[in-house]
Amino acid sequence: MIIVLKPGTTEEQAAAIQRRIEELGCKPLCMPGTERVVLGALGDERVLAQLRLEGHPHVESVKPILSPYKLVSREFHSHDTTVDIGGVVVGGERLVVIAGPCSVESYEQFDATARAVREAGGHALRGGAFKPRTSPYSFQGLGHEGLKILERVGAETALPTVTEVVEGADVAAVAEHANVLQIGARNMQNYRLLQAAGESGKPIVLKRGFSAELEELLLAAEYVHDRGNPNIILCERGIRTFCSATRNTLDLNAVPWLKARSHLPVIVDPSHGTGLRELVIPMARAAVACGADGLLVEVHCDPSRAWSDGQQSLYPAQFDELMRGLRPFAEAAGRSL
Amino acid sequence: MIIVLKPGTTEEQAAAIQRRIEELGCKPLCMPGTERVVLGALGDERVLAQLRLEGHPHVESVKPILSPYKLVSREFHSHDTTVDIGGVVVGGERLVVIAGPCSVESYEQFDATARAVREAGGHALRGGAFKPRTSPYSFQGLGHEGLKILERVGAETALPTVTEVVEGADVAAVAEHANVLQIGARNMQNYRLLQAAGESGKPIVLKRGFSAELEELLLAAEYVHDRGNPNIILCERGIRTFCSATRNTLDLNAVPWLKARSHLPVIVDPSHGTGLRELVIPMARAAVACGADGLLVEVHCDPSRAWSDGQQSLYPAQFDELMRGLRPFAEAAGRSL
Amino acid sequence: MIIVLKPGTTEEQAAAIQRRIEELGCKPLCMPGTERVVLGALGDERVLAQLRLEGHPHVESVKPILSPYKLVSREFHSHDTTVDIGGVVVGGERLVVIAGPCSVESYEQFDATARAVREAGGHALRGGAFKPRTSPYSFQGLGHEGLKILERVGAETALPTVTEVVEGADVAAVAEHANVLQIGARNMQNYRLLQAAGESGKPIVLKRGFSAELEELLLAAEYVHDRGNPNIILCERGIRTFCSATRNTLDLNAVPWLKARSHLPVIVDPSHGTGLRELVIPMARAAVACGADGLLVEVHCDPSRAWSDGQQSLYPAQFDELMRGLRPFAEAAGRSL
Amino acid sequence: MIIVLKPGTTEEQAAAIQRRIEELGCKPLCMPGTERVVLGALGDERVLAQLRLEGHPHVESVKPILSPYKLVSREFHSHDTTVDIGGVVVGGERLVVIAGPCSVESYEQFDATARAVREAGGHALRGGAFKPRTSPYSFQGLGHEGLKILERVGAETALPTVTEVVEGADVAAVAEHANVLQIGARNMQNYRLLQAAGESGKPIVLKRGFSAELEELLLAAEYVHDRGNPNIILCERGIRTFCSATRNTLDLNAVPWLKARSHLPVIVDPSHGTGLRELVIPMARAAVACGADGLLVEVHCDPSRAWSDGQQSLYPAQFDELMRGLRPFAEAAGRSL
Repeated sequence: MIIVLKPGTTEEQAAAIQRRIEELGCKPLCMPGTERVVLGALGDERVLAQLRLEGHPHVESVKPILSPYKLVSREFHSHDTTVDIGGVVVGGERLVVIAGPCSVESYEQFDATARAVREAGGHALRGGAFKPRTSPYSFQGLGHEGLKILERVGAETALPTVTEVVEGADVAAVAEHANVLQIGARNMQNYRLLQAAGESGKPIVLKRGFSAELEELLLAAEYVHDRGNPNIILCERGIRTFCSATRNTLDLNAVPWLKARSHLPVIVDPSHGTGLRELVIPMARAAVACGADGLLVEVHCDPSRAWSDGQQSLYPAQFDELMRGLRPFAEAAGRSL
Repeated sequence: MIIVLKPGTTEEQAAAIQRRIEELGCKPLCMPGTERVVLGALGDERVLAQLRLEGHPHVESVKPILSPYKLVSREFHSHDTTVDIGGVVVGGERLVVIAGPCSVESYEQFDATARAVREAGGHALRGGAFKPRTSPYSFQGLGHEGLKILERVGAETALPTVTEVVEGADVAAVAEHANVLQIGARNMQNYRLLQAAGESGKPIVLKRGFSAELEELLLAAEYVHDRGNPNIILCERGIRTFCSATRNTLDLNAVPWLKARSHLPVIVDPSHGTGLRELVIPMARAAVACGADGLLVEVHCDPSRAWSDGQQSLYPAQFDELMRGLRPFAEAAGRSL
Repeated sequence: MIIVLKPGTTEEQAAAIQRRIEELGCKPLCMPGTERVVLGALGDERVLAQLRLEGHPHVESVKPILSPYKLVSREFHSHDTTVDIGGVVVGGERLVVIAGPCSVESYEQFDATARAVREAGGHALRGGAFKPRTSPYSFQGLGHEGLKILERVGAETALPTVTEVVEGADVAAVAEHANVLQIGARNMQNYRLLQAAGESGKPIVLKRGFSAELEELLLAAEYVHDRGNPNIILCERGIRTFCSATRNTLDLNAVPWLKARSHLPVIVDPSHGTGLRELVIPMARAAVACGADGLLVEVHCDPSRAWSDGQQSLYPAQFDELMRGLRPFAEAAGRSL
Repeated sequence: MIIVLKPGTTEEQAAAIQRRIEELGCKPLCMPGTERVVLGALGDERVLAQLRLEGHPHVESVKPILSPYKLVSREFHSHDTTVDIGGVVVGGERLVVIAGPCSVESYEQFDATARAVREAGGHALRGGAFKPRTSPYSFQGLGHEGLKILERVGAETALPTVTEVVEGADVAAVAEHANVLQIGARNMQNYRLLQAAGESGKPIVLKRGFSAELEELLLAAEYVHDRGNPNIILCERGIRTFCSATRNTLDLNAVPWLKARSHLPVIVDPSHGTGLRELVIPMARAAVACGADGLLVEVHCDPSRAWSDGQQSLYPAQFDELMRGLRPFAEAAGRSL
């Protein structure tokens, strides 16, 4: 840990801080400069964090040297983690495409969409039963009824299922009906939910919050792992920026950055990441090219009547085109599809 | 609602959309231009939203005319709402200053800080017992123990208390010990929590999410109001931008914007809004000058040893300076303090 | 153009605005709703812009229907434009890779780097002689000396050259020594420079400003085209967001969005778009996968001693790896390399 | 300067970097940790910058300790600088209000507006003759004709004048007709223009770029000062964020942050900083409350017909209200008006 002291700090004041570092069993170092004194503190940074020097009146800034996450980092666990989601492995050689509608609207709608997904070669189904919506007047999902439809159609199509869970108290019920629990962007820092997801032991798709730093995403994953669940799939889904041409800015830089620093699989959601149907196919290709382990794509049997996210949902024929066009890119990336 | 059709849409295709508008009992209007056809739809926009035209293949964009919130809007309720928080009224003529440490750390720490707040003229106490923290390794709050300290010190100093609640399941317990429930920035779109807060009937401080649009903040408030609780205080606490000089960018534009569109009181948190102790006093003054109904300020009896947010917490003497210096600005704004 | 009037606007006031629309030879339309009156105005939007209704006291908002750019739009010119940069065609079937150091530092440095670029299969050379630098104390480029080195090495390696121009007054001199003029991100809205670049007739690489909307980039290109120069290559190079893990957020959504709306070629700069050497290769692949017509890459014969941008410059061996690894992605995208 | 080495760097590799530090006459220090080696380098940071260690293959990150600006910093020059703009002093005890239309449109328009400004108590006139506009089809200003009107009306009303200059080549001509040169947000990093402004010796209003870090603003000012011109007034005018409710997000945190770090006066433009007429008065008050030395406000004799920025221009009666309402806030801030 590097501690820059304010100009004008006396030697005694600096020495007092060094003593606090020593009291914790860590080793202080002093670099006196002409305009600022800089201290170093060697030792476990999580122990040093207890000093809470950020608030000290003589401290200008504190810079940790080590990353604050551990269980999910590559320094701790160097080889790739794979996550088995109902028989399909995410993070291995094969690219995994999870597709389906934003919301489960009815058996007919979900069944028709699921068949289209399977026929085109999709590997798993997504569909929301509990929908966090910005407005209280928007459709909030079918709830438990939706979960049952999800489970039934999953069984009938023999595809694993992914669905969102929005509250710790729901984890057990959702876990009973779906193969994978999704934690949505709005809940990436809902720590109670992360802990409950960790305790469930189920595979988790953890979506990046729409204004989360990548380090914060890894710390959210650390919450899940810390409760004993290493089955975490990170998902880049676009961030909020000034750019108004697209609903979100898909931050594909995140894919190789995360893969270099964490052993967890990383997938990309080009539907939310763009918000525009016409951009989904090119950005799906880009995601695969930069190293994503899979995709999360919105498909609807009739987007013009979708109850939510219609403008970014693919038609079945477009999803088929996506899957076909993806193959050469998957191969270029050394993957099968 | 204004519906811009894609270039190349035929008259028949446009007519089909107009028929869907009519089927809902609304009135369609057609504005054929040289390059685009534009449709208008007159009627209740929440009914029109059921058409979900965003996903329609011939629709380029949809622009609602009316705001999507209703209960919290001034159009619905033109005069200012006041919220009574344990005998102190927020939103009236008097400026209200709520102050205290980020976290309740011990009886001694909270008591010492509370006395300093009261002596300087603060009107209510803040202090967190459940702390949502980015890292699982950071101090997470004292939990129920903290609530009891909060309640005891509140009673001893005769100051109303504000504390954060992070999950719907905790609302009842927290409501028993505190006068006001705070919903933090990370939870602004935790809809289950908003609904539980709505059902509690308790006064709510609703903090703006760090990348929430102002309209999204009002929709979050609408969730609370929709469950029968009009006792909502909106809080601007800084947004996340590219600007790295400060922890957040305090968006004071939000204050007059929200006051013009909503009848709810608006307070400002200059501590999180800047992240730097030295900026708290000037930004508190600015908040009052642009019309805020109150402030939420972090004060700690010894910031150099605070367990969280030390770098933005005021020393007791600085809080005293804040209160004294605020008076002429409050008066300039036509307020008492 | 759609004009939403403020609540409370009277019929007479609305009629007065309609008369102003008619006076311009355009056709007004009125959509009276229960809470707002909405006006439509049919006709040339650039004529309608003269009304400047945004400032009118009874106007709440104005929404143009047509895009404000024309010469660079696909609606005006549907097939792809190709730009010949000294014998290499950008925007055609072949992917074009422009590579070289951030700055021309010496004949030896630029020559060594250029040979490495040519051997690995690069198609054109980049190198800055006039460097816009954030600090007045940073290296500002070799100036005219640098231009001469650029020209000499370009001739010796038979590679076309791209270099930045920072002021209208320099355009003629720079145009004499280089094949392509680059307008940098900081100058995307330097309209005098855009006009001078337009008048030069030379091929232009126009980089997106680091907080420019895509529509603003197209309007900047419109400035160049409006002066008679259609030889414009758009360049996505990352935008400034809250995300601090990377120097910029590479907005690859921009590639298919721009290609759909404009006939101009689009290239991507993964060096500035990430700021981290390790991310350049994966993001170059992603750029090609989503449809970019080429790449602009920083390579240096010895990045550890580069005078600028060393941390994002590839070593020659890495550039060779980039070129080799790119081939299957180019083929998947239906391109040759 | 703090240099964090990558994990796995050997002792010899670290020693080689230390030798390069020594060769520059600076003093290296080594802090070997369990997972990373950290080096310190003591000495002039601008000398150390020549090492360009950011690009070194064994270097993970470099953190400078000292600020990169010098002439404009308080550490260099501790007391407040005042800038005389044609007899009016900015940065002293008196708050200075500069007001006028976005563009000089005609003698009649500018004269009528200027008289309204003077009658309400404004201290200086603003008005653009050269307008940098996003679209080539928008009104670009009256040019030299506009400068003459500006000068004539300035003389007739006895108010100093401020006008924008957009290119180095124009500086001399503009300087002849106006008291103060404004460098606009789009040109904050137009370094040639900054240098020309520096050489002119005229008072400069330097507006913050709409996505400029505060440190970048100070470095832009350093460019001007470095050419011998200390007469610089910094201007916060709003930044570009995700927030779409307002045209820009006025970053008032910037005011006390800049005043603490620089001796230059700081003014605020609440017109561009909000983009909405209704927010100008409250935000002007907030700016004064947090320590601004003055305001730059758009006023127009008839905003409903303004050729640019009508929606954010005050009516003369509103400007009068602004000036009157500002007085108690100025007094609360220890200023006269």
